[in-house]
Amino acid sequence: MTTGGSISGLLTDLYELTMAAGYFAAGKSEEKATFELTIRRLPPNRSFALAAGLAQAVEYLTSACFDEDDVRYVRSLPQLARASEGFFERLRRFRFSGDLFAMPEGTPVFAGEPILTVRAPLIEAQIAETYLLATIGFQTMVAAKAARVTEAAAGRGVVEFGTRRAHSPQAGVLAGRAAYIGGCIGTSNALTGSLFGIPIYGTAAHSWVLAFPEEEEAFRQLQRLLGEGTTYIVDTYDTLDGVRKAAALGRPLWGVRLDSGDLLELSREARAILDAAGLAHAKIMATGDLNEYKIRALVEAGASIDAYGVGTDLVTSADAPSLGVIYKLVELESDGTRRYTAKFSEDKRTYPGAKQVFRFEDHDEIGCAWECRAAAAARTLIRPVLIRGGMVEPLPDAAAARAHAAASLAALPAECRRLAAPEPRRVEYSPALRALAKESRRKLEAGVT
Amino acid sequence: MTTGGSISGLLTDLYELTMAAGYFAAGKSEEKATFELTIRRLPPNRSFALAAGLAQAVEYLTSACFDEDDVRYVRSLPQLARASEGFFERLRRFRFSGDLFAMPEGTPVFAGEPILTVRAPLIEAQIAETYLLATIGFQTMVAAKAARVTEAAAGRGVVEFGTRRAHSPQAGVLAGRAAYIGGCIGTSNALTGSLFGIPIYGTAAHSWVLAFPEEEEAFRQLQRLLGEGTTYIVDTYDTLDGVRKAAALGRPLWGVRLDSGDLLELSREARAILDAAGLAHAKIMATGDLNEYKIRALVEAGASIDAYGVGTDLVTSADAPSLGVIYKLVELESDGTRRYTAKFSEDKRTYPGAKQVFRFEDHDEIGCAWECRAAAAARTLIRPVLIRGGMVEPLPDAAAARAHAAASLAALPAECRRLAAPEPRRVEYSPALRALAKESRRKLEAGVT
Repeated sequence: MTTGGSISGLLTDLYELTMAAGYFAAGKSEEKATFELTIRRLPPNRSFALAAGLAQAVEYLTSACFDEDDVRYVRSLPQLARASEGFFERLRRFRFSGDLFAMPEGTPVFAGEPILTVRAPLIEAQIAETYLLATIGFQTMVAAKAARVTEAAAGRGVVEFGTRRAHSPQAGVLAGRAAYIGGCIGTSNALTGSLFGIPIYGTAAHSWVLAFPEEEEAFRQLQRLLGEGTTYIVDTYDTLDGVRKAAALGRPLWGVRLDSGDLLELSREARAILDAAGLAHAKIMATGDLNEYKIRALVEAGASIDAYGVGTDLVTSADAPSLGVIYKLVELESDGTRRYTAKFSEDKRTYPGAKQVFRFEDHDEIGCAWECRAAAAARTLIRPVLIRGGMVEPLPDAAAARAHAAASLAALPAECRRLAAPEPRRVEYSPALRALAKESRRKLEAGVT
Repeated sequence: MTTGGSISGLLTDLYELTMAAGYFAAGKSEEKATFELTIRRLPPNRSFALAAGLAQAVEYLTSACFDEDDVRYVRSLPQLARASEGFFERLRRFRFSGDLFAMPEGTPVFAGEPILTVRAPLIEAQIAETYLLATIGFQTMVAAKAARVTEAAAGRGVVEFGTRRAHSPQAGVLAGRAAYIGGCIGTSNALTGSLFGIPIYGTAAHSWVLAFPEEEEAFRQLQRLLGEGTTYIVDTYDTLDGVRKAAALGRPLWGVRLDSGDLLELSREARAILDAAGLAHAKIMATGDLNEYKIRALVEAGASIDAYGVGTDLVTSADAPSLGVIYKLVELESDGTRRYTAKFSEDKRTYPGAKQVFRFEDHDEIGCAWECRAAAAARTLIRPVLIRGGMVEPLPDAAAARAHAAASLAALPAECRRLAAPEPRRVEYSPALRALAKESRRKLEAGVT
């Protein structure tokens, strides 16, 4: 992640650069290309993903460049030994000058629907592929997982606690952001809080308790520091013993955190201990290898748990740790003529042309970008974000994206939000788009393009 | 990732900062603490992990700091409303001044063995926890996955192709590094190549083929650019038709890449087409949702595949997408006395004291840091890396770590490297360490510390 600095254009796959050199050599690098970023197929137990990461995509597009060291490195590659001086000069001048259209962050998205549409000189749109997929795909996956986890918690707050198990420090920072958009009330990651204005949570770990000769002393010192925010981690030695020590200290406190053992049973016993000590207002938080399935089971069993912290399974989307995002060329304009492109390989078919997504109450329709629908019947999901490299308007912040997600998810049928075997959303292709696909295939097969 | 710049100290969990403030308030922040980073339990189908990420851990420890904006943010947090001015001043002065001991990158590591040991003022060692776990845990997991994938390929080259599906762009960069250490011959990520001197691979994607009106023309242009490195992606329209077009262009070429369909069958037919065209030297690469299980099946079925590209499953370690890394306080020195610490909660027990790992031919022994073994019988795995914040000697680079991994893995029994149900390594605790654990528990229970 950067904050203010530039992002190296080298953060891409080598083949983007060899293709860029080839386009340049073939005189095609400045042709206007349209690529779209979509989800090929949703993973098992997912009937939706939740668009997220647009802010980082924009940060990349508005800052990526190649400095002298980067260009020197590219020039040193055997694969680019035949590239011309003009190509390296073009890399030096690399700045994204195209248009970006996108679903707002927090929008539920289904397989086949463009999350982003990039329209730019072919060389620019191509080099951007790798970074856009990595940042959009990851956050979109985690936001969807967070929506599931918060759905399971049924109104209880869920905090994202997973940076330590995220796939790299940056993944931790961005997972906190995506989890918040998806419905978590905040994150443990302080940089996420600072960069994106997201609430952060956390009090003390086992090491705090171990750092004092006695648990009571550790608890007393914590209370002195945190007052009404004090949350005691009670399982360093013996959980219920820990709860009794916390209860003995009385007010002020927020509550206790259970981090191991039988959370259902322990929560009931902890509740009884706190109540008996006149601390009915004290809360119980549960953490420790949780996910939506375990939380749902605890909620249904009537656990005395007021809040959940979820780490590993949330930030890695453990039951579906990748999202099949793809970035496909759908249009190319050269010499004033527009050509529509698509893949017709058996298991990886795509549709040609820039698209729009129309969201009706009970289904979505993917149409051509130029199509319209009566505004009352459907919402139009893809909107302009960058025009000729410049922002159309400031993006909504993470809190606005979170509110948008909450409202949008609430509008989906409950069967679609179900944790197991959720009902798939009906997504149709418009007659105009189907006709375009058919025509493109016919032209290709006839060798007429 | 940074390259040269500093890393914000805010890239940590809030509770590290509240604990830091609490240690400061309790006069404990400068006590000398020893933490160790270990794997609590290996995931299913893993009998080893492969230590990786030390270079990034060192980069963090030698550069993390809090600038004025960071300190202002911490000061604004309600959780730190009672922290003293002295604490914020301490954050401003934050620089890692302690010692770091670690297993060299590329060392096979088993559950319970310290990958890193950090010995530093409590405040410094505590704040570092989150970042160290995230960067070591991720790379250690991916390096192990890469070892499995290359084991399955049985001598054929495997290239890491997964940045686009990695959990954030940084995860992509670091996955390429870890995969190389674990045995891949290189990565597609150009920044990984540039930062770490790792070979990079890649030629062209479907968009290259789509960008030209006809597949033949796309292939011809690619050959012109890449010469003997030319690899044609042949499945944009029809795979075997693509192979025939590639074959018709003749030399120079490296070969073809199959990216969808029945790879076993297609590889045989592609081989026949290439051979019939007098291109027996041309290679066949396979990609497309591969992993160690699919590669093993292709190899065993005698597929005509000379090289593999693996993306998503490798960079997300899809069948085991997290590693249970923990960071535990094991010793604390205050007022000249050393106290050993451990957790005794039922399912999360730890051992006290700084440790050493002795690797014998057929088992490992975890002992106290001060223990010795006859050099001929066992290798000592944990070595000094930083002393009082400074490097002891330059770290081996990624290529050296890869060579170390290859030699170390070859020394493990084949049953331990098996893809399914591998045999666990025998790991024992030394008598001295067991005695220390017993004594620590006795003292704790007696309330004598």
